[in-house]
Amino acid sequence: MSAVRIGIVGGTGYTGVELLRLLLRHPQAELLAITSRKEAGQPVADMFPSLRGHTDLRFSTPDEAPLAQCDLVFFATPHGVAMNQAHSLLAAGVRIIDLAADFRLRDTAAFEHWYGMPHACPDLLAEAAYGLPELNREAIRKARIVANPGCYPTTVQIGFAPLLRTAGLVDGAHLIANCASGVSGAGRKAELGNLFAEAADNFRAYGVKGHRHGPEINQELRRIAGLADADASLNCLFVPHLAPMIRGMHSTLYARLTPEGQKLDLQDLYTRFYANEPFVDVLPAGSAPDTRSVRGANVLRLAVHKPTPDTAMLLVTQDNLTKGASGQAVQNMNLMFGLAETTGLDGLALLP
Amino acid sequence: MSAVRIGIVGGTGYTGVELLRLLLRHPQAELLAITSRKEAGQPVADMFPSLRGHTDLRFSTPDEAPLAQCDLVFFATPHGVAMNQAHSLLAAGVRIIDLAADFRLRDTAAFEHWYGMPHACPDLLAEAAYGLPELNREAIRKARIVANPGCYPTTVQIGFAPLLRTAGLVDGAHLIANCASGVSGAGRKAELGNLFAEAADNFRAYGVKGHRHGPEINQELRRIAGLADADASLNCLFVPHLAPMIRGMHSTLYARLTPEGQKLDLQDLYTRFYANEPFVDVLPAGSAPDTRSVRGANVLRLAVHKPTPDTAMLLVTQDNLTKGASGQAVQNMNLMFGLAETTGLDGLALLP
Amino acid sequence: MSAVRIGIVGGTGYTGVELLRLLLRHPQAELLAITSRKEAGQPVADMFPSLRGHTDLRFSTPDEAPLAQCDLVFFATPHGVAMNQAHSLLAAGVRIIDLAADFRLRDTAAFEHWYGMPHACPDLLAEAAYGLPELNREAIRKARIVANPGCYPTTVQIGFAPLLRTAGLVDGAHLIANCASGVSGAGRKAELGNLFAEAADNFRAYGVKGHRHGPEINQELRRIAGLADADASLNCLFVPHLAPMIRGMHSTLYARLTPEGQKLDLQDLYTRFYANEPFVDVLPAGSAPDTRSVRGANVLRLAVHKPTPDTAMLLVTQDNLTKGASGQAVQNMNLMFGLAETTGLDGLALLP
Amino acid sequence: MSAVRIGIVGGTGYTGVELLRLLLRHPQAELLAITSRKEAGQPVADMFPSLRGHTDLRFSTPDEAPLAQCDLVFFATPHGVAMNQAHSLLAAGVRIIDLAADFRLRDTAAFEHWYGMPHACPDLLAEAAYGLPELNREAIRKARIVANPGCYPTTVQIGFAPLLRTAGLVDGAHLIANCASGVSGAGRKAELGNLFAEAADNFRAYGVKGHRHGPEINQELRRIAGLADADASLNCLFVPHLAPMIRGMHSTLYARLTPEGQKLDLQDLYTRFYANEPFVDVLPAGSAPDTRSVRGANVLRLAVHKPTPDTAMLLVTQDNLTKGASGQAVQNMNLMFGLAETTGLDGLALLP
Repeated sequence: MSAVRIGIVGGTGYTGVELLRLLLRHPQAELLAITSRKEAGQPVADMFPSLRGHTDLRFSTPDEAPLAQCDLVFFATPHGVAMNQAHSLLAAGVRIIDLAADFRLRDTAAFEHWYGMPHACPDLLAEAAYGLPELNREAIRKARIVANPGCYPTTVQIGFAPLLRTAGLVDGAHLIANCASGVSGAGRKAELGNLFAEAADNFRAYGVKGHRHGPEINQELRRIAGLADADASLNCLFVPHLAPMIRGMHSTLYARLTPEGQKLDLQDLYTRFYANEPFVDVLPAGSAPDTRSVRGANVLRLAVHKPTPDTAMLLVTQDNLTKGASGQAVQNMNLMFGLAETTGLDGLALLP
Repeated sequence: MSAVRIGIVGGTGYTGVELLRLLLRHPQAELLAITSRKEAGQPVADMFPSLRGHTDLRFSTPDEAPLAQCDLVFFATPHGVAMNQAHSLLAAGVRIIDLAADFRLRDTAAFEHWYGMPHACPDLLAEAAYGLPELNREAIRKARIVANPGCYPTTVQIGFAPLLRTAGLVDGAHLIANCASGVSGAGRKAELGNLFAEAADNFRAYGVKGHRHGPEINQELRRIAGLADADASLNCLFVPHLAPMIRGMHSTLYARLTPEGQKLDLQDLYTRFYANEPFVDVLPAGSAPDTRSVRGANVLRLAVHKPTPDTAMLLVTQDNLTKGASGQAVQNMNLMFGLAETTGLDGLALLP
Repeated sequence: MSAVRIGIVGGTGYTGVELLRLLLRHPQAELLAITSRKEAGQPVADMFPSLRGHTDLRFSTPDEAPLAQCDLVFFATPHGVAMNQAHSLLAAGVRIIDLAADFRLRDTAAFEHWYGMPHACPDLLAEAAYGLPELNREAIRKARIVANPGCYPTTVQIGFAPLLRTAGLVDGAHLIANCASGVSGAGRKAELGNLFAEAADNFRAYGVKGHRHGPEINQELRRIAGLADADASLNCLFVPHLAPMIRGMHSTLYARLTPEGQKLDLQDLYTRFYANEPFVDVLPAGSAPDTRSVRGANVLRLAVHKPTPDTAMLLVTQDNLTKGASGQAVQNMNLMFGLAETTGLDGLALLP
Repeated sequence: MSAVRIGIVGGTGYTGVELLRLLLRHPQAELLAITSRKEAGQPVADMFPSLRGHTDLRFSTPDEAPLAQCDLVFFATPHGVAMNQAHSLLAAGVRIIDLAADFRLRDTAAFEHWYGMPHACPDLLAEAAYGLPELNREAIRKARIVANPGCYPTTVQIGFAPLLRTAGLVDGAHLIANCASGVSGAGRKAELGNLFAEAADNFRAYGVKGHRHGPEINQELRRIAGLADADASLNCLFVPHLAPMIRGMHSTLYARLTPEGQKLDLQDLYTRFYANEPFVDVLPAGSAPDTRSVRGANVLRLAVHKPTPDTAMLLVTQDNLTKGASGQAVQNMNLMFGLAETTGLDGLALLP
């Protein structure tokens, strides 16, 4: 099989360098171009010395880059870039994976509310596949556009899905997702709050007035439950926190079990639900996953608990940049191009 | 007024060095002795170079130490030490503040279950005052024995108290305390899981099968609510997590509001409840406290949120070694000896 | 004695908040004003929640602020601000401590080369006292302008001074200062390299083509040795590194001993040299100081070693924001206003 | 070619889990056994959840393990284990790579002095090859026993070699190696000084009275220079420091250039010296390498500086567990078994 010809738009941020780390070792990926208007001409390995010796690629301007000759273009850009280039790329027969949020929310008004910009191609929203392979694999295979999920939403959906796929097991209107993320989740942007001297040896909640991943979580949890987009009978309270670590995400999820749900063997439910998933690891009963056990690996580890008779508690970990972003994007690429889903994604976590 | 003559039993751990940091600057404290069988003879400042130049005190054996001549003895020891010395010290007219758990649980059976040892003086359990000044000030003033609260329980009680003091505001049977602590909370013990290379750049839940602070939390929340010790109509699910920071504790508390509770102005409730408390800082609406804003200070900062119409959410931070342990112990000492409650506790947080 | 009336120009950075932490607890300091054009009107405690409850001060514009009514103005500003206001403040009888570099280099050309701006008041350079009390105490007492030293230069000068005060002990032309600093040393500026996700779990040299503290170090080491400013027979190679910690500075200093110098008892030399200094702690022979042993304290701890017969090695630690900046500034203030040098500076290091 | 059959003795520490991470992805490695008396029977992935799903291996006792059927046995043990099993393994035709120090020092007396135990097989010391491929490749290919170098010595030798291979370029008697290591270098041992709450936000020198890597460094630098083992005309002062990071090692090396050496183009010297080395990356002039740029990768990056006319300064970084230990061990294995030297070692550094 011939290699997938790939372009990356953006790529000077953390999801960009993570994508490069993975694609440069992917046996079926041929990297044709990476664009950055600001860094055009600079070797990628000058910006990211970790790549020295492994690529001669230079950043190019979007105009120069042979994106139309690619089979696939990843957008590792700020929100709002992919939607402006989607039509012309699709017209050239190029498929798209957007690591930003342009195609995550199906409701144009919601997108415009949460991201503060008009949507450039609402017509494509319905077409885009939501890129969470474990829950939407078939749609991804065929999609021209894949909306790579947000990092938090990945953990919350994988965590709650087994409880929501069957109606009536939990009080869906009062789900809680108490999450903590490493600082790389904020991106490679020079902002005061993300300075080492501000974020180290510190812990705090943020986004307490509402976080963009909230509507994405509820949209998708409702879909998982087979409910309409705006059906308030399912609602998850999402509370993100910032932890002083580089990578890593930990979500502690709470659901109130109905009398029906209380009869379930939760450990068994989850083990069976994810039995064939190469990237979801349901831990033995009584466990608590470390974020470091998935550092740099495209895997999500979770533990299932029933701390009171009517409470289900899930402990879910992933690397926010790998399974939470770029690793998942490569997983989507593998599906889109008929490759084995695990191709290029078998690296083991770096521990310690 | 003459100074309070003080002895410290133990003192080679983190609560010990924090107590020394505070007491060496306390204008009414006279440090007579600090004991450690293992370190007897060694200058305290050799073990803790941060104290060099500020004290000539040496560790002494418990037998040599003039504890009976003290007005007050702090136990900064492992659980189970204070209870064995309590009777003889009380008989000598010495008052006691125990930073360990010997006098926290009023139910002997519960103590024996959670701490795995018989209680040496169950007769004193009823007498001991629970040392959370904001909720139990009068009892502390008169007490001969004060049980200094656990770090987590301090944040959970201060956080929930305004909602529980009035019956019927919340669904008390389903409270959730999702907490994160810095690693110093595990003590100065050479354990694998607390190594830098294990705990850094990592986040995980722990104690998932039950944590000793759970029964303490429920005992005291029930007392705050005016309920019997075993009244299961009030129950808090407590889930601790380990965050890669030295000091700092952050509790995210959730309560389901009853229709009655939903009518409340929560911000106003909390602001008034703690209006006269020097060490509880209710932040303006919409805030999220940083643990670093209380680093080394005897203060607890909290923010009040109502993220959905029927959810109260409290964000509570403290330094686990200061307001969560040794600072609170000094606050108790001040009350017991008729000093201004803030004496020696006015240091500002170290930020950044 | 009446309190010293104080103004702070700047104060939104890390040396600013550290100065506030110290001055708000200084028994002889009366804080009249703190200026920030950008933050004018905002309560200081809104920017730095660690100060909540301890000050009602608000930032004001430089024009509004009653600086001319102050006894002393601290400049906690970027380089180049103090020199523009010095003449008018001095004319109003106000004394000045500049925490930036405007008055550190006596050679105007050197200043202009290293700081990239013309000097606004070269006439005042000769008058300014270099604010390292241990080596320049008498000049500071009388000074109208004090140039508070750079953080690295403080450690290097205190470290080498005993070896340089007597001629002929070391090969002065080949001194080496291999230093490491916490990230707060880079200031509270939103720069990419100081992000948590860039600086954590990382170590690197920086400023390898020349760092501004180099000329300051050589200027002052030469003065200590009684040499002319440009006398190349004394030269220190200064190599700074960035360590993943918030506060703390560690300098490892190397000097080649002459045959004369090899006869010395170095431990004795240092112990006697600093015998009466309240803020310099010479550790027992064989020690290695931790930066954390001085966290938040205005003290510099050092250990003296002779690892080979002809090598003197000094291990010097300080908190870069305290003894390396704002604590030293308060120490200078105490000298300038006839207060006991330790006033307001007796806080113990926060450990752990 | 058939796979190399491998046994690991020890393997419960950090070099062990790093070896497993690499070997489980090595296309020519077949892992037959891993021993740990204490953990016998336990699945390796229970101890290191990062390996879950990638190996079914269990720890076995040394007696059960089919070590004699292996082609190669790695010792990832404390010092003193390999030397006791070497003779019997060699007799069975098994080759050995020892990651501990048993075969590093050729002088038995030096070994016994620094490691505090008699040497069990001094006869094998002469035979063992020192496993630094870049400087000793041919001997490694043929060796039955390879002494995998210490982490610090790897950086120091690679850093100084180009200056020492030609006589007369530097003052060899006064080399300085000022080094900093992450805490994983201390191993997975429950020791107080390596606790998170002790080592985080801290920096200090250690081993100031002499460190075991000192004699190894001097032995090998002398060999590189073609000098006798005890020739004091070459001596390197080695000063290690502990930095608050998990992985990473940074060595700042200083050499005084002779008049002859001052004529050299150092950048050119180093670039040519390492031109064909896949795992040594000489950075462009003016650079300063980050330790994170080699995190998890088997590469050593270095920058060459001449900060004064007579000083050569090298900045050398590696991951102490990869190129500094287990990665280098795999590189040695590749050489010993005629595999391409880079086999299984092409993983890119994890950044951020």
